[in-house]
Amino acid sequence: MPASQHQSPKSDIEIAQAAKPRRIADVAKERLGIAIDNLEPYGHYKAKVSMEYIKSLANKPNGKLILVTAINPTPAGEGKTTTTVGLTDALNHIGKKAMCALREPSLGPCFGVKGGAAGGGYAQVIPMEDINLHFTGDFHAITSAHNLLSALIDNHIYWGNSLGIDTRRVAWRRVLDMNDRALREIVCSLGGVANGYPREAGFDITVASEVMAIFCLAKDLEDLKTRLGNIIVGYTRERKPVRAKELNAHGAMAALLKDAIAPNMVQTLEGTPAFIHGGPFANIAHGCNSVSATATALKLADYVVTEAGFGADLGAEKFIDIKCRKAGLKPDCVVIVATIRALKMHGGVKKEDLKKEDLKALEAGMSNLQRHIENLKKFGLPAVVSINRFSADTDNEIKLVKEKCKALGVEALMADHWAMGGEGAADVAKAVVKTIDEGKANLKFLYPDEMPLFEKIRTICKEIYRADDATADKSVKDQLKTWEEMGFGKLPVCIAKTQYSFSTNPDAKGAPTGFNIPVREVRLSAGAEFIVAVCGEIMTMPGLPKTPSADTIDVGADGRIVGLF
Amino acid sequence: MPASQHQSPKSDIEIAQAAKPRRIADVAKERLGIAIDNLEPYGHYKAKVSMEYIKSLANKPNGKLILVTAINPTPAGEGKTTTTVGLTDALNHIGKKAMCALREPSLGPCFGVKGGAAGGGYAQVIPMEDINLHFTGDFHAITSAHNLLSALIDNHIYWGNSLGIDTRRVAWRRVLDMNDRALREIVCSLGGVANGYPREAGFDITVASEVMAIFCLAKDLEDLKTRLGNIIVGYTRERKPVRAKELNAHGAMAALLKDAIAPNMVQTLEGTPAFIHGGPFANIAHGCNSVSATATALKLADYVVTEAGFGADLGAEKFIDIKCRKAGLKPDCVVIVATIRALKMHGGVKKEDLKKEDLKALEAGMSNLQRHIENLKKFGLPAVVSINRFSADTDNEIKLVKEKCKALGVEALMADHWAMGGEGAADVAKAVVKTIDEGKANLKFLYPDEMPLFEKIRTICKEIYRADDATADKSVKDQLKTWEEMGFGKLPVCIAKTQYSFSTNPDAKGAPTGFNIPVREVRLSAGAEFIVAVCGEIMTMPGLPKTPSADTIDVGADGRIVGLF
Repeated sequence: MPASQHQSPKSDIEIAQAAKPRRIADVAKERLGIAIDNLEPYGHYKAKVSMEYIKSLANKPNGKLILVTAINPTPAGEGKTTTTVGLTDALNHIGKKAMCALREPSLGPCFGVKGGAAGGGYAQVIPMEDINLHFTGDFHAITSAHNLLSALIDNHIYWGNSLGIDTRRVAWRRVLDMNDRALREIVCSLGGVANGYPREAGFDITVASEVMAIFCLAKDLEDLKTRLGNIIVGYTRERKPVRAKELNAHGAMAALLKDAIAPNMVQTLEGTPAFIHGGPFANIAHGCNSVSATATALKLADYVVTEAGFGADLGAEKFIDIKCRKAGLKPDCVVIVATIRALKMHGGVKKEDLKKEDLKALEAGMSNLQRHIENLKKFGLPAVVSINRFSADTDNEIKLVKEKCKALGVEALMADHWAMGGEGAADVAKAVVKTIDEGKANLKFLYPDEMPLFEKIRTICKEIYRADDATADKSVKDQLKTWEEMGFGKLPVCIAKTQYSFSTNPDAKGAPTGFNIPVREVRLSAGAEFIVAVCGEIMTMPGLPKTPSADTIDVGADGRIVGLF
Repeated sequence: MPASQHQSPKSDIEIAQAAKPRRIADVAKERLGIAIDNLEPYGHYKAKVSMEYIKSLANKPNGKLILVTAINPTPAGEGKTTTTVGLTDALNHIGKKAMCALREPSLGPCFGVKGGAAGGGYAQVIPMEDINLHFTGDFHAITSAHNLLSALIDNHIYWGNSLGIDTRRVAWRRVLDMNDRALREIVCSLGGVANGYPREAGFDITVASEVMAIFCLAKDLEDLKTRLGNIIVGYTRERKPVRAKELNAHGAMAALLKDAIAPNMVQTLEGTPAFIHGGPFANIAHGCNSVSATATALKLADYVVTEAGFGADLGAEKFIDIKCRKAGLKPDCVVIVATIRALKMHGGVKKEDLKKEDLKALEAGMSNLQRHIENLKKFGLPAVVSINRFSADTDNEIKLVKEKCKALGVEALMADHWAMGGEGAADVAKAVVKTIDEGKANLKFLYPDEMPLFEKIRTICKEIYRADDATADKSVKDQLKTWEEMGFGKLPVCIAKTQYSFSTNPDAKGAPTGFNIPVREVRLSAGAEFIVAVCGEIMTMPGLPKTPSADTIDVGADGRIVGLF
């Protein structure tokens, strides 16, 4: 019996720091055949793959695409990134050529409560401190590009406002990659004539920037620039949109992003190559790593494992209806991650009681997993369930989960990559390969481009969340109609709601029914090319807790970081 | 006759992009004997030198240190960085082993009016686009570390303020590396209970951050952490200072800076290794590259050329009385950069009339150069004058400058590295080597550590600026006394005043007399370990012009940047 996730004597950072990584140039050369001339190294263990080299791969066939998603998250933890990394190592362990494509973690939350976002235990990507801190500077570049546009807007107004931007209708905020609640709502440009026109403004965290979403959806530098130019920065008094290109901002913004758009390669603890690139919010944006990383990985490996944000209701739906639709990607298999602990929480067990066997609660909580399985069938995608093993899991509980999944025609397997690395997820890997070999994937989008915008929202709410209906005030529906008249009717929709429930009530665990989804507000991301429907309170600038993790993070004289998690 | 600086058919970026640089690992190996294992590459043309390797150099003898400074800047341009680069190439050209240590340019001003800060013509460091944009991410790391402290302060207040910080006396602002006048003065924490206590706040540009000054003065990671902990973030109602270490911020801040503190190596167009590291403001801070870069360069090369900000009145004085004093550095020779154009402007000629010979104005303007020469003698340092050649310079004008300098015992030489590279500054290089060989340098600081703070300010004003006196309100003098009682009396002082004149009147060119220097405000940089005396209006967050250079900056589909300058 392998060690449980709560009995390991080593922390994630200790395991990562104990690893003896290989030079990334050697990993890229030996595992993927990429010569050093096609890499831009960042230290010896991180590298960007050059865009020129990526272009040269265009005619190579694609590998198989595996999406890792999950049940609705609970405080018990599910381990989606850990599974993505572990499954990739497992595929290599069983003799396949596999790599993964992950999101870059945000810097700000590292100093709050959040652990690292580079996997855990023996299923991690390294160097984990670098990945969690500045990495290759992509998010800093996105912050700079975003705030350059912000500065250009206020500068334009300051110097006479020839575009007639209504200072009450500036839609473009500023961003920082820092959890700083004091910046959520500010009044800027105080201090007199030399500093401009006072107006209400505010900051979001960088991952919430539309530049981040654009960065992750752009096919190449030209597409990036076009999308940046299309950003709507605000409106005139006549409600006419003003775009970034009218400020000539898109060229300089793209110049700031020219290095960042190349995907970053690192390795797992087992020396498997991994892309980590881009990381948009999974609520007001689509929550997946960059199209360029996923598409490039498909050219380089036979199996590519990637993940989507939050649970499958939000993450997988957006992965398919936004990212796959726009980038022409077609997943071959979906892996749904769950833990018995988390399923019991969905069945009503409190966190402190999770170690006790509770088959009744588990059966109740299975309703959450079951609904996600059913939903993925609507997309025409076959699924495998991967249960992250914890030491308190009982044989009866495991049996129950397997049987319930089998009844839905889906295989559920136990995975212990956390304690064992790739070997621990070999069963999942074999099931995934078998599923892909059966060739059952037949991707269907949930709605056609032509469907009216509110109908798209309604379709997601009814088909995926199982709401009775989507509701909205007339003003919201009028806004959507206006956008349709402006030519934005064919965009996909991106729903921003709580990740903790199918409904908008985070406490409604399991598989709730008998609710509506109220659309409070809609936003247009004209550069990223989707409509955001905000359902409930969405926080785009987190705060720090009373005792933030910054309190214990430190670095020794030898440059070794401690306390990162 | 070489091409003039205004007849070259190529822009700086075109010259830089046409260069065929060598791999930085090859440059480091062949020119300095540094193995690739001791480098952290950032792409193939930039690298950090590892701190471990730097420690291993401790017992090596130091090379000779050459400081490049200048007359008071004018709109005609002087070319200090160009001379630093050109002289370094010239020293290599005449057979010496030389490298330079420069400041990193700030990102924000690139999108305003400022040209790049990587030299010019055929005396540049490359890759210039990278150096002027994100480079190796040092400034982003400094921005993050600074703003983490800002967030921790407001978070501390939000959660109950057990340290009793007076929210009206928070001294720590926020920073961004962007010219954004709208952020100079803001009210933050609006929007109700969840967002904190509304208070006045604001942003400076990153180069004005005390973290930047600390970063540049710290000897190593431990020293950095100690200094970060000593930052005074605000005061209690009882006027007791609250330090960053009381918020446990310094460890996490240092963790964010652990990679950044290693100096960055690039190369000149002629393949000479160059350090570019750190870049604090030259008004409210000391305006020199990092101590670690300068000290490391002295271990690696026989001649190290470095520069200080603004004219010699501000830059050289701070280089000596702050950086050299604190880091134990001893310059062997000073090079004062001037142009005949600029000297004529100091003599009253308007910019549009600079192409006409005007010996009378030139003689009048020489007063500025003469005073800087005299000043440098007070520091016990021999000087060489380097005149950047322009095509309109006449033989009579050149003769006049040379004679006037000779009368002060200083050799003045024409330099044309801008058009010719290192060969063009060979005469200057020979004069510098000869001067160093004479061994006349005998460094003296302007004031002892023990001198009372206001006397230090007065000494600089009288000895260097030639003011009749320094004046200040009682409140300023009382503040200085309080700091002396708190134990800060031994710190050096850093004067923030206009760089365009010896006086506080930017229009008073040449060598003004009969003025006082009014000290408007004093600030304590307890982490950087100096007292700032603010004399006149000092802008710590620039704005953008009506037509910012962002307007024309662009990047092609091939990733090539255009319009950067």
